[in-house]
Amino acid sequence: MKKTFLRVDMRKSTNDNENEMKALVFENGDISLKTVPDPVPGPGEVLIKILKAGICNTDLEIQKGYMAFSGILGHEFVGRVIDAPLKEWVGQTVVGEINLFCGTCEFCMRGDTKHCPSRKVLGIAGKGGAFAEYLTLPMQILHALPKNVSIEEGVFTEPLAAAIEVLKHFNSAQDRVLVLGDGKLGLLIAQVLVLESDSVICVGKHERNLSILERIGVHTFMKGDDVEPGFPLVVEATGNEEGLNTALRMVAPTGIVVLKSTYRNAPTIDVAKVVVDEIQLIGSRCGSFPEAISYLENKRIDVAEIIDGDFPLDRATEAFELAGKPGTLKILITP
Amino acid sequence: MKKTFLRVDMRKSTNDNENEMKALVFENGDISLKTVPDPVPGPGEVLIKILKAGICNTDLEIQKGYMAFSGILGHEFVGRVIDAPLKEWVGQTVVGEINLFCGTCEFCMRGDTKHCPSRKVLGIAGKGGAFAEYLTLPMQILHALPKNVSIEEGVFTEPLAAAIEVLKHFNSAQDRVLVLGDGKLGLLIAQVLVLESDSVICVGKHERNLSILERIGVHTFMKGDDVEPGFPLVVEATGNEEGLNTALRMVAPTGIVVLKSTYRNAPTIDVAKVVVDEIQLIGSRCGSFPEAISYLENKRIDVAEIIDGDFPLDRATEAFELAGKPGTLKILITP
Repeated sequence: MKKTFLRVDMRKSTNDNENEMKALVFENGDISLKTVPDPVPGPGEVLIKILKAGICNTDLEIQKGYMAFSGILGHEFVGRVIDAPLKEWVGQTVVGEINLFCGTCEFCMRGDTKHCPSRKVLGIAGKGGAFAEYLTLPMQILHALPKNVSIEEGVFTEPLAAAIEVLKHFNSAQDRVLVLGDGKLGLLIAQVLVLESDSVICVGKHERNLSILERIGVHTFMKGDDVEPGFPLVVEATGNEEGLNTALRMVAPTGIVVLKSTYRNAPTIDVAKVVVDEIQLIGSRCGSFPEAISYLENKRIDVAEIIDGDFPLDRATEAFELAGKPGTLKILITP
Repeated sequence: MKKTFLRVDMRKSTNDNENEMKALVFENGDISLKTVPDPVPGPGEVLIKILKAGICNTDLEIQKGYMAFSGILGHEFVGRVIDAPLKEWVGQTVVGEINLFCGTCEFCMRGDTKHCPSRKVLGIAGKGGAFAEYLTLPMQILHALPKNVSIEEGVFTEPLAAAIEVLKHFNSAQDRVLVLGDGKLGLLIAQVLVLESDSVICVGKHERNLSILERIGVHTFMKGDDVEPGFPLVVEATGNEEGLNTALRMVAPTGIVVLKSTYRNAPTIDVAKVVVDEIQLIGSRCGSFPEAISYLENKRIDVAEIIDGDFPLDRATEAFELAGKPGTLKILITP
């Protein structure tokens, strides 16, 4: 099929330089707002105008050296397609998956594209990200955002998909479920779990964040509180070594610990406990965008309370400073 | 039902002191042969004369401080029942499971007795072991040894059950299976796996041990050889931190690493890799005695080549010295 490229008028506002855009770039250990060349879509790619993007903990870890990435940060976004091989896409409000896969290796051939060994990962590995005015992405990793999902909500598609992925390890026989961590991802995970279980416990460090969960029926505790161990399912979303070892203390024999955090360093863990108690430690990363969109479309999850700020791209470094403060929830960036 | 206690004549040989026996005791950091009081069976317990016992790596780890155990070592044995609440048991050649469970907790009630939180573990935690002339055990954890299983073979019931447990995580879609470690347990695991898959690879450090596996169709490599990574199933049986991190390098994305080793220390592991590649790290300990006995009865596993020595109990410390030398396979002790 011959592909037609269309272009809509929103391509550039009047005060834009014709071939340059602003972007938040991480290089040589620092983030800064730079003027960089506009991205040019390759074959099968669309050009997207970024409407809003979100700061993830992975972005903060990258600042500290995780993945040795350098380039434009950002992998959670909503945008509008302004150029595409298929005209149906042009003008659509979209979210994009983060794994840019080869499509030909054995992983891709069996549909496991997120583990394609030669993948690039948006704003994380080999591919510039979404804290910019424009972005190009392969058409096949885009998803249209339903009309009743707001742009702010849409930014949560990627982390919500990651949160929903935890359900793969949940079953209704698990009498109690523990979420460790009351950050952005911990809150999404607890919200997803409490739809399935009336005995979800979250241990965190920030009363304000925990109170958001309390209001929807999650039982919350401050770190250091006395919580009875023996959970068949523990979700580790603190991102630190202490949290991981707490998870191992709290999980029941033969139980599951789902690891959702990005760890920059290699933690020391009590492997003897894993063996003796026959625990399953399961790494978990990206999830299904269609499922996440369906949660948002059906208003199963309320993300409004998880947003702590919305900064223009010009103030992105300030946004990162705030996002890095303990307890801060989602910070959005609007180009 | 009223229980009848029977006693057979083999209770004591003529040169025994009437109420004392010899036993290999670990205390204050040292093992030594001691004279200790005969064990006295409690309610529901049988008195067993030990015919032969085997040294496990866990025994060697206990010597270095694992589990902070002190007492009579040994948990792999074959014995003859000389006293029992039920007369059918008397005279039987038996093997015994190692977890002495309470029978009343929630774990026991659902049949998961090996995770009973108040369990004692034979020769490992709270219960003296089998490197002795006599042993008492609850009747319900005994299994009669079939006539065509030799005493030497029977000693392997416990570690073979642990090896067979790995099959819970094996499926025929796994195109290649890797066993790390060519010690006693690694060899048993590779032997069990090669019955199910014609692509079992074992990486070890001892040419003699690997040659035992080569003869039965396992593909073997010396540590440091170039082995292509990407295994859907890796079994870690080296017992050291390096082996665990090798397992994480060799496993395919979404693959399983089964941890079979007893780790005395807490290793440092690349948890980011576990998360990004969505790996499952699964601890695995004891297995089913009936299954292991069935393997031995049906001659599915040949353990003869895995035996490196058989020492009288009087020379048990010497046996331990040999067992502790790298590459030594099973050392038996005969009271």
